[in-house]
Amino acid sequence: MSSEFGNKLRVSIFGQSHGSAVGCVISGLPSGEAIDFDALQTFMERRRGGKGILTTARSEADRPEFLSGIENGITCAFPVCAVIKNGDKHSKDYEKLIHTPRPGHADYTAFMKWGGFADMRGGGHFSGRLTAPLCIAGGIAKQILEKRGIYIGAHISEIHGVKDEPFPLFPDKALFDSISQKATPVISDARGREMEKEIENAKMNMDSVGGIVECAVTGVMPGLGEAMFDGVENKLSQALFGIPAVKGVEFGAGFEAARLMGSENNDAFRMDENGKVFTETNHAGGILGGITNGMPIVMRAAFKPTPSIAKKQATVNLSSGENTEIEIHGRHDPCVVVRAVPVVEAAAAIVILDLLLEGK
Amino acid sequence: MSSEFGNKLRVSIFGQSHGSAVGCVISGLPSGEAIDFDALQTFMERRRGGKGILTTARSEADRPEFLSGIENGITCAFPVCAVIKNGDKHSKDYEKLIHTPRPGHADYTAFMKWGGFADMRGGGHFSGRLTAPLCIAGGIAKQILEKRGIYIGAHISEIHGVKDEPFPLFPDKALFDSISQKATPVISDARGREMEKEIENAKMNMDSVGGIVECAVTGVMPGLGEAMFDGVENKLSQALFGIPAVKGVEFGAGFEAARLMGSENNDAFRMDENGKVFTETNHAGGILGGITNGMPIVMRAAFKPTPSIAKKQATVNLSSGENTEIEIHGRHDPCVVVRAVPVVEAAAAIVILDLLLEGK
Amino acid sequence: MSSEFGNKLRVSIFGQSHGSAVGCVISGLPSGEAIDFDALQTFMERRRGGKGILTTARSEADRPEFLSGIENGITCAFPVCAVIKNGDKHSKDYEKLIHTPRPGHADYTAFMKWGGFADMRGGGHFSGRLTAPLCIAGGIAKQILEKRGIYIGAHISEIHGVKDEPFPLFPDKALFDSISQKATPVISDARGREMEKEIENAKMNMDSVGGIVECAVTGVMPGLGEAMFDGVENKLSQALFGIPAVKGVEFGAGFEAARLMGSENNDAFRMDENGKVFTETNHAGGILGGITNGMPIVMRAAFKPTPSIAKKQATVNLSSGENTEIEIHGRHDPCVVVRAVPVVEAAAAIVILDLLLEGK
Amino acid sequence: MSSEFGNKLRVSIFGQSHGSAVGCVISGLPSGEAIDFDALQTFMERRRGGKGILTTARSEADRPEFLSGIENGITCAFPVCAVIKNGDKHSKDYEKLIHTPRPGHADYTAFMKWGGFADMRGGGHFSGRLTAPLCIAGGIAKQILEKRGIYIGAHISEIHGVKDEPFPLFPDKALFDSISQKATPVISDARGREMEKEIENAKMNMDSVGGIVECAVTGVMPGLGEAMFDGVENKLSQALFGIPAVKGVEFGAGFEAARLMGSENNDAFRMDENGKVFTETNHAGGILGGITNGMPIVMRAAFKPTPSIAKKQATVNLSSGENTEIEIHGRHDPCVVVRAVPVVEAAAAIVILDLLLEGK
Repeated sequence: MSSEFGNKLRVSIFGQSHGSAVGCVISGLPSGEAIDFDALQTFMERRRGGKGILTTARSEADRPEFLSGIENGITCAFPVCAVIKNGDKHSKDYEKLIHTPRPGHADYTAFMKWGGFADMRGGGHFSGRLTAPLCIAGGIAKQILEKRGIYIGAHISEIHGVKDEPFPLFPDKALFDSISQKATPVISDARGREMEKEIENAKMNMDSVGGIVECAVTGVMPGLGEAMFDGVENKLSQALFGIPAVKGVEFGAGFEAARLMGSENNDAFRMDENGKVFTETNHAGGILGGITNGMPIVMRAAFKPTPSIAKKQATVNLSSGENTEIEIHGRHDPCVVVRAVPVVEAAAAIVILDLLLEGK
Repeated sequence: MSSEFGNKLRVSIFGQSHGSAVGCVISGLPSGEAIDFDALQTFMERRRGGKGILTTARSEADRPEFLSGIENGITCAFPVCAVIKNGDKHSKDYEKLIHTPRPGHADYTAFMKWGGFADMRGGGHFSGRLTAPLCIAGGIAKQILEKRGIYIGAHISEIHGVKDEPFPLFPDKALFDSISQKATPVISDARGREMEKEIENAKMNMDSVGGIVECAVTGVMPGLGEAMFDGVENKLSQALFGIPAVKGVEFGAGFEAARLMGSENNDAFRMDENGKVFTETNHAGGILGGITNGMPIVMRAAFKPTPSIAKKQATVNLSSGENTEIEIHGRHDPCVVVRAVPVVEAAAAIVILDLLLEGK
Repeated sequence: MSSEFGNKLRVSIFGQSHGSAVGCVISGLPSGEAIDFDALQTFMERRRGGKGILTTARSEADRPEFLSGIENGITCAFPVCAVIKNGDKHSKDYEKLIHTPRPGHADYTAFMKWGGFADMRGGGHFSGRLTAPLCIAGGIAKQILEKRGIYIGAHISEIHGVKDEPFPLFPDKALFDSISQKATPVISDARGREMEKEIENAKMNMDSVGGIVECAVTGVMPGLGEAMFDGVENKLSQALFGIPAVKGVEFGAGFEAARLMGSENNDAFRMDENGKVFTETNHAGGILGGITNGMPIVMRAAFKPTPSIAKKQATVNLSSGENTEIEIHGRHDPCVVVRAVPVVEAAAAIVILDLLLEGK
Repeated sequence: MSSEFGNKLRVSIFGQSHGSAVGCVISGLPSGEAIDFDALQTFMERRRGGKGILTTARSEADRPEFLSGIENGITCAFPVCAVIKNGDKHSKDYEKLIHTPRPGHADYTAFMKWGGFADMRGGGHFSGRLTAPLCIAGGIAKQILEKRGIYIGAHISEIHGVKDEPFPLFPDKALFDSISQKATPVISDARGREMEKEIENAKMNMDSVGGIVECAVTGVMPGLGEAMFDGVENKLSQALFGIPAVKGVEFGAGFEAARLMGSENNDAFRMDENGKVFTETNHAGGILGGITNGMPIVMRAAFKPTPSIAKKQATVNLSSGENTEIEIHGRHDPCVVVRAVPVVEAAAAIVILDLLLEGK
């Protein structure tokens, strides 16, 4: 199943970084939904490189062509296929790496799995480039959710130890919008500037840094998700670990919950004046027993530092069977986290729309 | 799909905490495998309560009865059904809680999903009791993996801030065995005693504590897992979030990777004298691009503190629509992490055997 | 996935003919549904042998024990596990057959797949005995459908060339009930008596006969099912071929449609006085493009003659590698079709309830 | 899941008849397989219209563009996306039909499911046009199977009552090749000419005819497939009912088995001089208990007559709520069966390759 995700809503992703195109097939979308292509493009731009010193110079327009499933701008009941042609390929930058796997990349594991047949130029199907079609699917899902009062936003929560403020207990659309318009999508601009400095330092040192993205989903009704293996956390984590470089996922208080007392971590239920139940804190991240409780769903995904660094690194030569070293050239983000923010939103949007379509 | 997991190997779990029985159906096991029932029982005992002051007094024997799939102690190609009768139920301890959902439990979300029909006595299908059938399936998977040279071990990595030593780069079966025989399964006994103190303190204060379990899998061939959504991390996290109280999952350096430079986090490939490739560090936790690289798979799961605490807590009355308070009586672990150690191993074993059966 | 079926409603079947028990796990049932256990037992009795000369003498009570998922007779949101203990085993009748596969049985294919480890006593997991748990799941599904105005009935459409009348264009519950109470469940009793003669003849000749079961589902709303591979026909056929001995499945006019002109086969749409659309004929069997059109769903399943016959048959000895002969003793139906009628209803009920839960 | 099929090998089909393109994503193909594009095109041509009086005049080249998954003509481990642009659309022929559903088509059921949003021009996603991407996937699967000694062939078994000879007990590649080169793919050319007459008559009478396609798969090892719901018959039938107009599927003797005695229908096992087991007859169609027995897999699919006929037909007007009539103009096959032959092969190839990849 590999590059497919979802139950009622299914997303299937195809393409290699240096192949002809990347794209996706999205099936199970509600019919009759008008797609705002400008908004989708704006969303896609947030993921795209080429905007500044902090991200790579690769500059495709990333404008998807829709081959099916949308007629006159409206979903027409059948699977949507969207394609982005790869216009800006520099394969020779990478070709020499085939026998000397790059540390931290999937070169070695792909070789062990497919014995040299995998098209790993530019990272192949493992490349961050494949998050573009994920953003097409997620961007469409996000629009459909917004019409149902469900909003999704994310910010950089941490880069190389520099932390942004956390989301407030009830983040709102205005906050999400404001963050999404920033070049460095954070709540505190002061912290954002510190993060930028960390990234610039890493770049100057021919190195890279990682970070954490925090994402919140508001407006979700209570009762979505299933017990045990098909709960909200199970599905969100399955999707989030599908984003390249993610090495950890947590919900609500997450790992910090392991350091709290039960009396601190439990979220007291309260009823507001309209009889609506809420919790005074949200250590559960909106999920109890795998099922939504109506509070914002809050998750964090940890990204490792970009494995492609200009520094010399130790590796092996799989042909000669000897230890060797490599230097990786080409264009690489010193930090993928900036561009990963909308990708995390996209993954969350796909899962939440799938849950919504599956119903209580 | 809810309480089912896996592709080639499928585990389906049934039962409620205070129903007649809990159990599982396991399909897709290799045929012709002799099951060591004593070893399975020993494994089950590690999960069971009633052993000391640190765990609950519930004392069922938890001895599974096998209704199908095993003949003369050998798997016979067809689905295995195993059942544990529930002998020791005290439903009335819980019945009064129906209208006042317990903070941190699934009472409220189950009510919002199923409107009062869910059998939530003792936590129903969300109870830690349901990890017993998970351990049957996982214990069998573990035995089958061991015959193929794959070993799984886990220890308490942290309780309420007290940290055990981490696993060494290459943990071995002897270490796993030694840990598994301890009442408090840790590497450093000194740290274990500190953890025990934290748990006793919590109990005395009518409170509870959470913690982290670290699990390692050794002997896995490189090349297992798929790109993107069906990788080793995706599947392990989907399984681990199926264990009650888990709120975070990470692999290798995990969240800490977000604080490292690329040059620190990348694991240098090296070749040993026999031409076997290994990495000098294991920040990747044995997984690159979702695919095993032959190094030990290392994961950590964060458990929140037991939500059932004797302290008075604020909640709502769903019948009267008013804010109220509850006190939870009955038997409860002040810390589920001790008993969760084999459960994490069980979940990992199911995933790894499934991956192995799916092949490269 | 083998012995599991369904999307929202999942049925997982376990057990071997001569093992301890057979049973099923049913997950995804709506909660709050009262189960009529007497009606379920009556339904189970229709499948059970021991009633007359036409069926085998095996006489277990086939009374399921429910281990989970039903409390106080009401579905309680969690997976239902039902078990029937196997009380009446005569394994030695079969044991000698292990090396000489019985023609028409799964002995040979099981041997080639599992190399002798499969528990094939009495047919193992391939035995008609496994339709008992299918009938538990189907019987429960049928009750839930009836409360929603959906009725399912079936009759023997043909045995060894003797044909019953077909269902009328709009069969109703009264017809279904009347058929279901007959020892030989047919519309025309005269034809039923002829069928009985065919079966008796076969028995006297130490032989067996096959037949066809026709099943109809009424009251299904238009719009259920999906295009292409997840349509109503795809799912019903997947379930029906799960019943032992089924070798053909058709819908509406089925194979006969291949002999009609388009102008004969097309069902003209008409509107009744209440504005309800119907078709004047039902060659489509209630399904167009894989989606229900509101007319009765009509399907037929062809059953091969019971492969177990007392006549001497040619086979091979897999140990010695020589051609040989076998005679099969023991209790065997001369015709499984009589008992298969409720089994077809059960399979249909599971599929239709699953479709209903998935929604339009 | 709708337009997706398979477990290890996954095929996802997209496109509407009068949209921009049709295509498919194929994931799970073995890597390192050289694709013979000429052979694929020859296979595609067999399905394409425009060749004679017996098929429609639509004349796209149907030449797929491969966007991913194949590099330098070799499968490169990642999902294959193939696209065929729709060049020859005459949408206005169909547009007037929206409110008056065509008998025998999915117009009405699509309307009831998606309430007018479905793009049903030219049949939309239900059109026979969507069998083109199915043939891309199936044509590639067929090539991969042939390299492993597995051959798939099909012929028209019957058209409007005129029957071709059946396949011999052991059909071979030469026979498959010879049939596949005929304009009317049959074994007996004399019968083929009678069939052509039936089709011409139907056309002259502004009517249509249906028929039956018989397909055989040779060279499959014994032991593929699973018991109960995931057997070879279950999967093949699920795929075959995904082909538009299929209303019946049978294996081996199929419905005719219902008219045989057990002693006639049972296939006697024999051992040849090399110790290879075969059966003297093949009423089982190569499948016992859902598992392959090494004999040719034989299946038949019944196709209803093309629902689009030029004759005036009774239908309803869904806007005005009145009974009315329609005449369907435009280009339509008087018989889809001729073009369906390679489509049945394609569906079979996908299933068999999936089974092979899943292993014993």
